Amino acid sequence: MTSAYAIILAGGAGTRFWPASRAASPKQLQALAGDPDETLLAATVRRLRPLVPPERVYIATSKALAKATAKVVPKVPRKNILQEPAARNTAPCIAWATRAILREDPDALVAVLPSDHFIRNAPAFLRTVERALLVAEQDYLVTIGIVPTRAETGYGYISVGARISHGASVVSRFVEKPDRARAEAFLRGGHHLWNAGMFFFRGRTMARAVEKHLPGIARGLDAIDRAAARGKEPEALARVFPRFPSVSIDYGVMEKADHVAVVRGRFGWNDVGSWASAWELAGKDKGGNAVPGDTVLVEAKGNLVYDLTTRREKRTYALVGLDNLVLVETDDAVLVMKRERAQDVRQVVATLKSRGDGRLL
Amino acid sequence: MTSAYAIILAGGAGTRFWPASRAASPKQLQALAGDPDETLLAATVRRLRPLVPPERVYIATSKALAKATAKVVPKVPRKNILQEPAARNTAPCIAWATRAILREDPDALVAVLPSDHFIRNAPAFLRTVERALLVAEQDYLVTIGIVPTRAETGYGYISVGARISHGASVVSRFVEKPDRARAEAFLRGGHHLWNAGMFFFRGRTMARAVEKHLPGIARGLDAIDRAAARGKEPEALARVFPRFPSVSIDYGVMEKADHVAVVRGRFGWNDVGSWASAWELAGKDKGGNAVPGDTVLVEAKGNLVYDLTTRREKRTYALVGLDNLVLVETDDAVLVMKRERAQDVRQVVATLKSRGDGRLL
Repeated sequence: MTSAYAIILAGGAGTRFWPASRAASPKQLQALAGDPDETLLAATVRRLRPLVPPERVYIATSKALAKATAKVVPKVPRKNILQEPAARNTAPCIAWATRAILREDPDALVAVLPSDHFIRNAPAFLRTVERALLVAEQDYLVTIGIVPTRAETGYGYISVGARISHGASVVSRFVEKPDRARAEAFLRGGHHLWNAGMFFFRGRTMARAVEKHLPGIARGLDAIDRAAARGKEPEALARVFPRFPSVSIDYGVMEKADHVAVVRGRFGWNDVGSWASAWELAGKDKGGNAVPGDTVLVEAKGNLVYDLTTRREKRTYALVGLDNLVLVETDDAVLVMKRERAQDVRQVVATLKSRGDGRLL
Repeated sequence: MTSAYAIILAGGAGTRFWPASRAASPKQLQALAGDPDETLLAATVRRLRPLVPPERVYIATSKALAKATAKVVPKVPRKNILQEPAARNTAPCIAWATRAILREDPDALVAVLPSDHFIRNAPAFLRTVERALLVAEQDYLVTIGIVPTRAETGYGYISVGARISHGASVVSRFVEKPDRARAEAFLRGGHHLWNAGMFFFRGRTMARAVEKHLPGIARGLDAIDRAAARGKEPEALARVFPRFPSVSIDYGVMEKADHVAVVRGRFGWNDVGSWASAWELAGKDKGGNAVPGDTVLVEAKGNLVYDLTTRREKRTYALVGLDNLVLVETDDAVLVMKRERAQDVRQVVATLKSRGDGRLL
């Protein structure tokens, strides 16, 4: 197998983990999946290591986050931290990062991975990635489809077609987030997998697919490549990139391309979509509480306490008569909510936005 | 009417307002009754002012609390802050403070008041106190009985006897905390009032009653008086006071004395017995939330947020999908509980004690 590279997508700035996640410290830079000392991004890089060493890891992020991002992955070379001058969804970003890798290694195999997911079984994950890369070597655009464990309506699905090599199958189509009835049918049928936003391809194959399906972006990237040859990539990027359309790799390339394959994945995947997921992934006592060790619990079950305050003085929490609560504290904000309302953190953020309270966003 | 003096009992160190109240900053030194800028003790002194100016107010507290106590009532002369060398319940404390007042004014009328209660209607309260003092001038030991508004099992009751002057009645007896059935009978019957721990008497009358019913204490106080005449009160106090028995004025004097009267009180009294009372007394929005002004509320009702953290940075709270919650924050502790569990704060304090975690007590 030729050398494998990775593009880790780390430009996100979600709102579902407020007040822990902020514009300046989004989810991927937080330790939200059990291990309080490892950010989701650092875990992503660490997990890949047996297949892709840090020198071959590229991280696509925003200008604003570049510094904080580099800090949590010190082994990734600074030149591999790609700074998008504007947020244009995944297609321009992946296409540009692929070009950057091709300049280094025209035969590169590339894995594109989100930076903010949790994977329980790293060896199983790596075996799946290896298989996806083998299929990608045969000029397929490959994705991993997570075997569903529930009738989830919050994800896109991949409809599985005919078998090809390495246990992979052709993708018959990508399906938008279904309603409950369809999600249940998908779960029963066994022919639909969750789209987890992971993609594998030969750099050249992707470059060609972008030329075909997003020719405007391809032309812009040609200009950036020429500038890079003269040591002028940043200037060209700043000029060209913001003019790209905002389009996802799914919609812009994967759904339109011909040779698209999927490899089934079963490795304890979790997209860490809300504080409820963070609670699920956290270490818990026998009462289901994920709280600091010295917390006083009086008839309290299923609670999550997440203390991000930075004062030196230790704080002790006491919970009395409370179940399934989420309490998150930072120096300037405190969130208390029923765990089942985890999605409504967005409403809090929307309210703060409408107040013009940028300090807290 | 001869000059009225007050003894305010401010030595308490309760645990029901943890983590706001601590050994070093107990309930009476907290602003727990609506006005966030006035401690309960300061409110007690302020409220009395039309009848008893600060120069005639004596505050009985512990050595450890004397400094913090003096700070919240700057108009009370420092010499009037009486420092008990040991906690011996109310009888020794009131008897000693009464002697201290008698040395200044042998004809003094004295009002004894708790420092940590809330009174909504100050003018009605003052009218009641005035009446109690008029009855006290006739050599009665007088108490105020609060007209019950519910079948409360947490208070002692006063059984009302024959009418005397000024709308007062003779006390037929003091009744311990009743069970629910008796409390309901008391409420229906109309002959029982709540004992709110307020007492009114001529100094001389109380001194004589102490001589009769607690002669050991009276002898000890004689020794202290003699030492005071030589400017040696502190030394005598330190020697004598700790040897006094721990006994309440109710049990040691009031229940045994002959001329005991009660005046009915109806002035919006609340003993601020728990965080649930603090919520009741606090200013609330139309959803029943007593929270900082900039709190973000998403379907949240009946909550109390009490922020005592001292960092300069402002903190914003967000509550999502929560009803009837109490959240109290200090620099080193955070309490979250269902309001209906307010009494169980004691369990938290007991747990901290059993851990030997004195820092938080």
